Amino acid sequence: MPYINVDPALPGIRALLAFSPDSASIIGELTNLMLRSNEGLTMTERELIASRVSYLNDCFYCHQSHGAIAECYLDGNTQLVEQVKHDYDNAPVSDKLKALLSIADSVQKGGKFVTEEQVQKAKSLDASDREIHDTVLIAALFCMFNRYVDGLGANTPSDLSSYTLRAKQIVENGYGNHVFKSKQPQTISK
Amino acid sequence: MPYINVDPALPGIRALLAFSPDSASIIGELTNLMLRSNEGLTMTERELIASRVSYLNDCFYCHQSHGAIAECYLDGNTQLVEQVKHDYDNAPVSDKLKALLSIADSVQKGGKFVTEEQVQKAKSLDASDREIHDTVLIAALFCMFNRYVDGLGANTPSDLSSYTLRAKQIVENGYGNHVFKSKQPQTISK
Repeated sequence: MPYINVDPALPGIRALLAFSPDSASIIGELTNLMLRSNEGLTMTERELIASRVSYLNDCFYCHQSHGAIAECYLDGNTQLVEQVKHDYDNAPVSDKLKALLSIADSVQKGGKFVTEEQVQKAKSLDASDREIHDTVLIAALFCMFNRYVDGLGANTPSDLSSYTLRAKQIVENGYGNHVFKSKQPQTISK
Repeated sequence: MPYINVDPALPGIRALLAFSPDSASIIGELTNLMLRSNEGLTMTERELIASRVSYLNDCFYCHQSHGAIAECYLDGNTQLVEQVKHDYDNAPVSDKLKALLSIADSVQKGGKFVTEEQVQKAKSLDASDREIHDTVLIAALFCMFNRYVDGLGANTPSDLSSYTLRAKQIVENGYGNHVFKSKQPQTISK
């Protein structure tokens, strides 16, 4: 049960965003900017980084939500998403993405865990400064979101199909504020 | 030395913000919203939470920057700021703030470290839902900023007086985008 008095019909971060519309609006804009772009990193790669970091932070709501969105972009390839979350080294993704995921893993532990060697490895595989920047910022952003969600004890739907339904809406409309304010169709089932 | 090609004259997060003006603008807005308000938590309390979390994350640039801002609000009381960073339990601050700092400490470790008991303690000391929400979001936000700064190896001025100079500007003008874009007067001294 959430630690503060939020709308019980809204799941995860959406209840917190509805509680605090001013910050929600800015958070929606930042999420849209960082996850809904194909400049450098693709939208799929951005969601995979978000899912991996959320998985490492043990934030079920976030890794299910962003895993489901990545899966939509990947035409339903659940196996690939799960493999990136659990064991990306052996997943069929590019070496460049593996190098960037290794940087994201370090960011999850703390900024100082990122090493010069990890960054050089990514650069040697043609990662641009923009791609390295976005990887670090997305990983850091999810260290925030995961803590926001679990730190306030937000509700986490256990029905996995609700994440798929919601993912389709995000894929179609993005993370705009209007999406956060909508209550349908993903609600808490108890 | 920063891991990506940023303006070497800009310190800490400011070099990263200049590298990525689109995200900088939104980040500035979010920082302003969460730190420049006296609704519920005071601006001083917000900066103290930011400094404490940044100190726990061992992010020198952030805990010096936000410590210096808190110090400005506290009319130069360095000792209080240092005590909150290192040992708030014995600092002359309210019991309510101590309870909220304890929640912030848990958020720094991870969202799931926050306990029902910590939240109940804060509520019993008259912390409102808004104050608990803002504490968690500020703590989570600095888990992002600290990782962004150190994860990209941003420069960290060692001259402590530069933080004081910069703090005065922030206290006067807030965290608007215009502040991030200005290069004066805090520059890297090597």
